[in-house]
Amino acid sequence: MLDTLIKNATVIPMTGEGEVYYGCSVGIKDGAIEFIGDGHPEASEVIDARGDIVMPGLVNAHAHTAMCVMRGYADDYALQSWLYDKVFPVEARLTERAIDAGARLGMAEMIRTGTTSFSDMYFCQPAVAKAVDKIGMRANLCNAVLALGDDYVFEKDRAVIETDELLKEYGVKGRIRADVSIHAEYTSRPEIWKRVHEWAKEYGAVTHIHLSETKREQEEAKARHGLSPAAAFDKYGIFDTKTLAAHGVWLEKSDMELLAKRGVSIAHCPVSNLKLGSGTADVAAMVRAGVNVCLGTDGACSNNSLDLFEELKLAALLAKGRSLDPTALPAYEALKMATVNGAKGQGREGETGVIEEGYRADLIMIDASSPHMRPIYDPISSVVYSARGSDVRMTMVDGKVLYLDGEYKTVDVKEAIREVEEAAVPIVLNE
Amino acid sequence: MLDTLIKNATVIPMTGEGEVYYGCSVGIKDGAIEFIGDGHPEASEVIDARGDIVMPGLVNAHAHTAMCVMRGYADDYALQSWLYDKVFPVEARLTERAIDAGARLGMAEMIRTGTTSFSDMYFCQPAVAKAVDKIGMRANLCNAVLALGDDYVFEKDRAVIETDELLKEYGVKGRIRADVSIHAEYTSRPEIWKRVHEWAKEYGAVTHIHLSETKREQEEAKARHGLSPAAAFDKYGIFDTKTLAAHGVWLEKSDMELLAKRGVSIAHCPVSNLKLGSGTADVAAMVRAGVNVCLGTDGACSNNSLDLFEELKLAALLAKGRSLDPTALPAYEALKMATVNGAKGQGREGETGVIEEGYRADLIMIDASSPHMRPIYDPISSVVYSARGSDVRMTMVDGKVLYLDGEYKTVDVKEAIREVEEAAVPIVLNE
Repeated sequence: MLDTLIKNATVIPMTGEGEVYYGCSVGIKDGAIEFIGDGHPEASEVIDARGDIVMPGLVNAHAHTAMCVMRGYADDYALQSWLYDKVFPVEARLTERAIDAGARLGMAEMIRTGTTSFSDMYFCQPAVAKAVDKIGMRANLCNAVLALGDDYVFEKDRAVIETDELLKEYGVKGRIRADVSIHAEYTSRPEIWKRVHEWAKEYGAVTHIHLSETKREQEEAKARHGLSPAAAFDKYGIFDTKTLAAHGVWLEKSDMELLAKRGVSIAHCPVSNLKLGSGTADVAAMVRAGVNVCLGTDGACSNNSLDLFEELKLAALLAKGRSLDPTALPAYEALKMATVNGAKGQGREGETGVIEEGYRADLIMIDASSPHMRPIYDPISSVVYSARGSDVRMTMVDGKVLYLDGEYKTVDVKEAIREVEEAAVPIVLNE
Repeated sequence: MLDTLIKNATVIPMTGEGEVYYGCSVGIKDGAIEFIGDGHPEASEVIDARGDIVMPGLVNAHAHTAMCVMRGYADDYALQSWLYDKVFPVEARLTERAIDAGARLGMAEMIRTGTTSFSDMYFCQPAVAKAVDKIGMRANLCNAVLALGDDYVFEKDRAVIETDELLKEYGVKGRIRADVSIHAEYTSRPEIWKRVHEWAKEYGAVTHIHLSETKREQEEAKARHGLSPAAAFDKYGIFDTKTLAAHGVWLEKSDMELLAKRGVSIAHCPVSNLKLGSGTADVAAMVRAGVNVCLGTDGACSNNSLDLFEELKLAALLAKGRSLDPTALPAYEALKMATVNGAKGQGREGETGVIEEGYRADLIMIDASSPHMRPIYDPISSVVYSARGSDVRMTMVDGKVLYLDGEYKTVDVKEAIREVEEAAVPIVLNE
């Protein structure tokens, strides 16, 4: 007998080339998808989708979740001032308690808006991992290595100590996984990259980096290495193991070809790239070059949301606006970025991002009855161009319902907000 | 005694340079704002805002509301095919019943997402006006004059007949007003423009037009008139009366200076401009030139939403991304576009768009308690970068509550959806 049956659903499975199944059932057993099709096999629990849209949960491939504590704290600042006057000083003060609260608040927002799996780069990840475990999301966690200053000692770096701890505690296979991370080309140097890469080889971990976010970064790398950031990383072997690179706004054609060849995924973060004045990545060209493009929110301090539905629509829109071609990045291509491509970027292909027998049951149900969703000519278009994160009725990870019709099952949202306001806001404001 | 008192609100009045009043009351009598400040004057009805944000209702300065019936019908098509193969043939078939249902559905979406006033350009406006009246929104309505084909006769044009009817029935002063409309430079000719302009002079009506939406339009006008579309309209005196021009994506610097000098407002429609591959208007340059910039959604067939909160955030983001300057178009500047500037574009300055004694009571209340809204360092930033249309708890026009906490007070949403699906969808699909 199944554990759960979702019936009467309009299912977008994200297999093949955009099939949609109407009046479909999805059956779940032991956290995995066991059945998809007509009929109503017996189940302990039945959820009536009443015609709503059921699809794979979204994958947020680049987040700094706990930065929710700085949501709206530093808007409309020039980039250097944003980073050096606002963000870095706050981060130097943030406590584990503040980060834990911020991470819980951010996860509440993500499950409310249909994200089931995320790749996170931030501090205090062993504590955050415990919160992820309790809340029940899927996550790849890392703390990025930056080697700034002459007195940098790899072994004493908090990020190094945490990464080692995460790799040993969680490994790279489960619902919670350790990634390794080089923050960016411009914040460390090849001998440090190689140390991080040793872990990637030893554990088979994904390497999560920032890449070609700003014009300045692209230009300075060329001055420093005679190479673009991507070519520099490749020269030192970093792309020999699976790599997930955020942004890619200033990638050149040769970079895109390199990333495609080396199997490097790009986490496109359109809201953050616009808000910080970094620009708009040429996603259509990346897709043409064969790059696996995922979607990310970046942190709430440069967004200010963790709602992947916003990135989904904006990615589809910006590709058209940038190229003056309304056929660029059609709806289904964008939806793949938010699901299957994201799973691949996380090293979770075959595990999440698709509704098919054998995949983990990471699903969302989207209310299709609101005025802004009607009429529906094509459910895929409706999800990309009409749906909002707020239309998500249900979010499920590993077959477990985390959110349903206004109720958060695994996180006390009020407590998380109170904790952010008591433990984090005074630190942010340096009161 | 007041009719209504809203208490315990965080009020963004949109006066001055960005004041915010905490723990503030707003009192309403006879549809107008009569009190704003501390204290709790007596009122027949009291609404506790419990710390939520109260601000002026948003103004959607360019809509084709009834196009909701085509929401998601023609996504990812090239522009010519979108227009000539999809939209125009459907519009030739649409009945008054279908348009009336579409307009009601669109208004439901607008009041749900905080829009209180809109400028609409579409067919069957006398019927739509009756629906606006019943639903209680504020609206400027017009049917655009297009003079295509050699056999065009002004007097026989349905748009002309409807405009005449609207002007006589509603005039240009009330909650529902008639605008006059020249569709665009490329869809008619100067002798027709002058006929429309006669009405504008006679009645004091706003002239609602499309302007410089596509590169092709800009280039073809120069070939035809030796002038940009804006300069051509100005040459024939169209800007002698108040004009609201949608899009302005391809305006040149000289056009912007002309619009500023002639007091022409631009309705910036960022989602539609991206989705149709038209490009991104240089809003920061328009603001520098002194143009009154408003925000619009355009129709749901090129958006696919009528949610002005999306345009608000995207306008602020795109200005930054386009200029690679994160200080471009700061939050308050964007919020003015969605409120006071919109009111001015509609010819409703002093009437709506501001919370101040004497203005009509067009207000919205935004839920500030959800995880994605917390913490709040600056309510203006929170409204622009964090809030969604779905966060609107209450929408009020002329002191009358149209939407409150999930309940639509003046429109039967289920009936509107059913009517769209029964009366419009088969026409769209030509079944």
